[in-house]
Amino acid sequence: MAQPIPTGALAGFPELLPEEQVAFDRLRDAIRGVYERFGFLPVETSAVERPAVLFAKEGGETSRQVYRISGHEDEMALRFDHTVPLARYVVEHSGELVFPFRRYAIGRVYRGERSQKGRFREFYQCDVDVIGDGALDLAHDADVLAVVSAAFDAMAVGDIVVRVSNRKILAGLVEFAGLTQRGGELFRIVDQLDKVGEQGVRASLEEGLGDGSAVDLILRAVSIKGAPAEAIGRLRALGVESSTFEAGVAELEAVTRLAVELGVPAERVVVDVSIARGLDYYTGTVYETNLTRHPELGSVCSGGRYDDLAAAYGSRSYPGVGVSIGLSRLFAQLREAGLLQLGAKTPTKVLVVPLLDDKSAPLAVAATLRDAGIPTEVYLEAKKAKSMFAYADRLGIPLVAAVGEAEAAAGTCTLKRLDTGAQEEVPLVDLVGHVRAALGWG
Amino acid sequence: MAQPIPTGALAGFPELLPEEQVAFDRLRDAIRGVYERFGFLPVETSAVERPAVLFAKEGGETSRQVYRISGHEDEMALRFDHTVPLARYVVEHSGELVFPFRRYAIGRVYRGERSQKGRFREFYQCDVDVIGDGALDLAHDADVLAVVSAAFDAMAVGDIVVRVSNRKILAGLVEFAGLTQRGGELFRIVDQLDKVGEQGVRASLEEGLGDGSAVDLILRAVSIKGAPAEAIGRLRALGVESSTFEAGVAELEAVTRLAVELGVPAERVVVDVSIARGLDYYTGTVYETNLTRHPELGSVCSGGRYDDLAAAYGSRSYPGVGVSIGLSRLFAQLREAGLLQLGAKTPTKVLVVPLLDDKSAPLAVAATLRDAGIPTEVYLEAKKAKSMFAYADRLGIPLVAAVGEAEAAAGTCTLKRLDTGAQEEVPLVDLVGHVRAALGWG
Repeated sequence: MAQPIPTGALAGFPELLPEEQVAFDRLRDAIRGVYERFGFLPVETSAVERPAVLFAKEGGETSRQVYRISGHEDEMALRFDHTVPLARYVVEHSGELVFPFRRYAIGRVYRGERSQKGRFREFYQCDVDVIGDGALDLAHDADVLAVVSAAFDAMAVGDIVVRVSNRKILAGLVEFAGLTQRGGELFRIVDQLDKVGEQGVRASLEEGLGDGSAVDLILRAVSIKGAPAEAIGRLRALGVESSTFEAGVAELEAVTRLAVELGVPAERVVVDVSIARGLDYYTGTVYETNLTRHPELGSVCSGGRYDDLAAAYGSRSYPGVGVSIGLSRLFAQLREAGLLQLGAKTPTKVLVVPLLDDKSAPLAVAATLRDAGIPTEVYLEAKKAKSMFAYADRLGIPLVAAVGEAEAAAGTCTLKRLDTGAQEEVPLVDLVGHVRAALGWG
Repeated sequence: MAQPIPTGALAGFPELLPEEQVAFDRLRDAIRGVYERFGFLPVETSAVERPAVLFAKEGGETSRQVYRISGHEDEMALRFDHTVPLARYVVEHSGELVFPFRRYAIGRVYRGERSQKGRFREFYQCDVDVIGDGALDLAHDADVLAVVSAAFDAMAVGDIVVRVSNRKILAGLVEFAGLTQRGGELFRIVDQLDKVGEQGVRASLEEGLGDGSAVDLILRAVSIKGAPAEAIGRLRALGVESSTFEAGVAELEAVTRLAVELGVPAERVVVDVSIARGLDYYTGTVYETNLTRHPELGSVCSGGRYDDLAAAYGSRSYPGVGVSIGLSRLFAQLREAGLLQLGAKTPTKVLVVPLLDDKSAPLAVAATLRDAGIPTEVYLEAKKAKSMFAYADRLGIPLVAAVGEAEAAAGTCTLKRLDTGAQEEVPLVDLVGHVRAALGWG
């Protein structure tokens, strides 16, 4: 006998039950609504790209595990983020786009990670980016911070802090300490602060640089964390003589101030100089976002400013700034931590229950409700009334409209609230109004 | 010098400009809204499945060009439809689902077709299916027809006809003519009617069956097309003595009647016995949908009833009925035929234009509007006012809120309608009301 076909989802490919999907979609819709409220345009590129595009930036496959598609005329692979396809898109369509180009992308990306807890191979990223043609005002960095703040408000998953820094601050420190040729390495070491602690970072720095004053200075800088005005004062008090450092501090000061002017609650905006973001990609503002009451979940939304989106294509310069919400990971973490409001299990608000053989009258009831925009199902199986009510109960459908011989003859239905058990016979012409009232709709 | 990296989308992988994406999203949202209004639950399975799952039904790779993912521990491939993953999902989660299980799936599927005009390799399918546990009432077939009708209404892409038949009608004819062992072949021959015409089908049938009365009977049956009552009368008048045939006619009669009772305009429901649908999969009702004024576009939504979704898994029987809207193809066809209303190029309704250096006041204007749910951007580049208005004009943003020194000092902004050129100075406290009125929002 043939082996049974496995029906479980592949490891690393998250699969949701319908009620979880409803909750997931609610978060995704909330993010999309905010991205549109901030005037970002949707661009949905293919999940499939040429490998040459995916590896354009890094010149190799080393840092990302890319899924390649085999056996076809064209070389193809699955995208691992939305930024690399955006670069291709902007170069391809630059003549047709209006700059500054504000685009959002909400979709799945793929990484051939070794399967382990919390690591997904297919997951949603929800990105916004603003791309300039040759130049892009610093104020966009504040606007992007404001989008993040509004998106988390809309998701209603608890308060957040956005931790902000500027890569020029660390770069200026590196210059000032005469360590320019070790710059990239330093960023990667500092980026480990959360994981290895100050002692770990000190050890790594001393291993590379000796135990001179440079290490002390860098550690003092990256320990600065707090409200913008105070943190920026402490940064300036370090006495670092570097125009790069000064530019970084000035940008950080402006971005945090403008964000508050854009309506971000001041307590959500925190300076944290330890944010290095390992990627060489970022050149200015960098952000990470934490849930205030659940810092253990790590950064749930990160991003920053880059000098040139399309450097790999050697074309015009396209500076940009953007962030990405890792929605699949956020959702899984919230669910695991019991922080997810699952809410309604179905969009359905009314279950029409036929208590007679001829389904004409119940179907007409459903048509009336659906025409009025009220999500409605008809229970169509030949089951006992008890089974029909159990169906509504299991799915959390709030209202049942029962139609028996008497109701069909009278042109009515019996509308029942499943929460209170209250019921009343309602003429069809009044049904929509009664249902809307029962649902608490305006 | 290295070869430049190609930036065009891969052939067969459609890529949209932002204004096209806005129009595409509007259609997709319309479909989703209707699917939810009919009480279907969202289920989004992975784009990646085990090859064993994808080939479970057909036992081979012959009929579908599947994209396989190479070089990883697990064997993986990209889904070619939503139905095969649904079968796996239902078997895997049967204990956690509520039956009849109504699910919708809107997402991209992949087929390694030879690249040619109108053939996509990555495209959206928008599916609804109702799955029973062991049994499923025939009335669901009418409900699915009603979903299709409502979805096309919501998309507002012109009137449709849904052509309906029932596979048992042809199967009964085949029985009656004593040709049971040729049944599958007959379905495939009849399915070619649109392409090769009656003469072509007659030739194919005669080649297989000789020129006896069976061929005449089959051709008379498949030429029956029209309003349900009349078409069903003609079917019965054929005098076919077969219980399968009679069951098919009775089901067709019931489904077309119930659909009208569910609110589908009667003129949209047409019987067309020539709909065979090549797939062996379908066992009862079959549907195809055409745009009334553009029959040349072919069927834009098809589906039908099947006896057992999960036959390949040899588990319980899960009869179902469903349809799929081929949205990418529909969108491309509408666009090519000039039938697409592109509408707004951006969600943005107000562009805030700072006419002063200090951006505090303009940013506060944007925050006020966004808080009120009004999609708003701020023009943040240091450009002349003319460039800022040109930006609004190119994107079709209807309103500009200009803030200069005078407005900042007075706590106002100058609100301008770009269609009429009318403008007025509005205090910030009244701004939301003025903007809502100018947009015609309640």
